[in-house]
Amino acid sequence: MAFTVSKIDHIGVACKDLDISKKFYTDILGLECTGEEAVPSQGVKTVFIKCGPNLIELLVDITENNDGPIGKYIAKNGQGIQHVALLVDDLVAAIADVQAKGGVMIDKAPRGGAGGMDIAFVHPKSVGILLELCTPHKA
Amino acid sequence: MAFTVSKIDHIGVACKDLDISKKFYTDILGLECTGEEAVPSQGVKTVFIKCGPNLIELLVDITENNDGPIGKYIAKNGQGIQHVALLVDDLVAAIADVQAKGGVMIDKAPRGGAGGMDIAFVHPKSVGILLELCTPHKA
Repeated sequence: MAFTVSKIDHIGVACKDLDISKKFYTDILGLECTGEEAVPSQGVKTVFIKCGPNLIELLVDITENNDGPIGKYIAKNGQGIQHVALLVDDLVAAIADVQAKGGVMIDKAPRGGAGGMDIAFVHPKSVGILLELCTPHKA
Repeated sequence: MAFTVSKIDHIGVACKDLDISKKFYTDILGLECTGEEAVPSQGVKTVFIKCGPNLIELLVDITENNDGPIGKYIAKNGQGIQHVALLVDDLVAAIADVQAKGGVMIDKAPRGGAGGMDIAFVHPKSVGILLELCTPHKA
């Protein structure tokens, strides 16, 4: 194995109202909000909730017509857990290895995601869910 | 706060075919399968994949008419991440506290789940997703 998966980095939760969702995790569960960031290229605004070694990434659509990935997800499924991201030590090796073993990647090369991470999505037809592989961006 | 959330204990993934899903996490991602268990009261069979401090719980419906919680989820949404479980230190206190702060619990008292855990679900109307709180069962 040319790469290692070390933990769930985060889950991505599609939300209709960021403030209502954030309030549940902070005020009711006592967790800490560690960052807010718009990612216009993905049509989303994200809020990160720290949960020990993991993050909960709250996602809301910020496109004009609610037709970004999160808007489409909510239109089809309602609110829910849109993706899970696993932390890998070597994203380039992981992308190559997954494909060499018959898995299908949406992203054939790392691209920039929220929180200073490089990310690549596995195609849902490979594993039934939207699975992200991620690693901290190296400058 | 009378309780503490310490990490994502696991995500629960609704699968159509346990063997195909398991093979992806073990053979392609190099993760270890740590347990298989039927929970007839929930109409599911589960497989746990260890992912560092977290688990990925693969779930398949084992009811005769595919009408258990997982069968119903797949009929409505297709395969996907059905729930996320957060580890708490005191489940009884967490259930009381969430309700005292206006959250709605499906389970008003802990009940037995897979993997030797006591569990209680928060109602999706409180937080938009199916959120489980869990803690190791004390004998």
